[in-house]
Amino acid sequence: MSRKYPVIHAIRKTRHSRFLHTEEVDLEFSNGERRTHERLLNSGLGAVIIVPMRDDDTVLMVREYGVGLDHYELGLPKGRLDQDESVEQGADRELKEEAGYGAHSLIRIGELSLSPAYMTHVTSVVLAQDLYPERLEGDEPEALEVVPWKLSELHTLMAREDVTEGRSIAALFMAREYLAGRYRP
Amino acid sequence: MSRKYPVIHAIRKTRHSRFLHTEEVDLEFSNGERRTHERLLNSGLGAVIIVPMRDDDTVLMVREYGVGLDHYELGLPKGRLDQDESVEQGADRELKEEAGYGAHSLIRIGELSLSPAYMTHVTSVVLAQDLYPERLEGDEPEALEVVPWKLSELHTLMAREDVTEGRSIAALFMAREYLAGRYRP
Repeated sequence: MSRKYPVIHAIRKTRHSRFLHTEEVDLEFSNGERRTHERLLNSGLGAVIIVPMRDDDTVLMVREYGVGLDHYELGLPKGRLDQDESVEQGADRELKEEAGYGAHSLIRIGELSLSPAYMTHVTSVVLAQDLYPERLEGDEPEALEVVPWKLSELHTLMAREDVTEGRSIAALFMAREYLAGRYRP
Repeated sequence: MSRKYPVIHAIRKTRHSRFLHTEEVDLEFSNGERRTHERLLNSGLGAVIIVPMRDDDTVLMVREYGVGLDHYELGLPKGRLDQDESVEQGADRELKEEAGYGAHSLIRIGELSLSPAYMTHVTSVVLAQDLYPERLEGDEPEALEVVPWKLSELHTLMAREDVTEGRSIAALFMAREYLAGRYRP
């Protein structure tokens, strides 16, 4: 991959996060054990991850820089929902912003969490089919490269070093099982 | 499922998290766009998720309460590594603590991230085979129920409401593709 990495000008520890907020929960288990567990709060609006199918076996993925791992990750389009937006509307918007396609068919095929142990985040998985070209301007700092991949080749996809995100890999297999008629949510 | 949920005695917003720490990164993309992105720091020790195989087609899962979603999640055993512990040692320990088994064979078959966009966390996926009963006392507030599942039945597993974690679902498919001889990390 030839894309030039962003330059990191500075890194600062933050005492008060702008968007990562936490709370403590005092728990008493049924055996009487007591624990205080911390959890990370989400935006409250929900999130979507989209599996966009260009044809029956070709999914469109995007390469996007992620500062968490400081690398370009190859994954599925995704994002947080806006206020007053349905899951399907949000999926269609993110798909237009990140991949340059709209979808005539949007089907919710499941929900994925990040880490039930300490995160409240839930992401709806949306299968997008019957695509047409349409681009919306998003808040991305740069255009994302769109990479087609065969659903029949997920075993070679997961061997790539730039494919690491659990939700993307899980959503791809959910879509494959759904399209094969084996899985129904 | 008959397990009684923990009682929540109190929930408090936390201004200073005990273990969720963040930093800000000033970025300049190759097109000159500048952004400041925030990311969540990890423990620095790494983490493991284990796919324990009781036989060639039976994986052992655990049901564990997660305060993030306030539910009992059915997922794979996992946990953070301790200081000076290798991935294989940590996998073996967590398996003994959470499922009551050790493994004669521990193979690292990949790495999964939570969210490259704002999380620095990476979890090693370890396939555990040739199991034997051995329990270690962990820091769990209660014993975890162990649930066997067929790798050939992942499409019915993902339809369950208590199976939501992206990393667990991804790791199960990675193990299935690996055991079928299709995927090599």
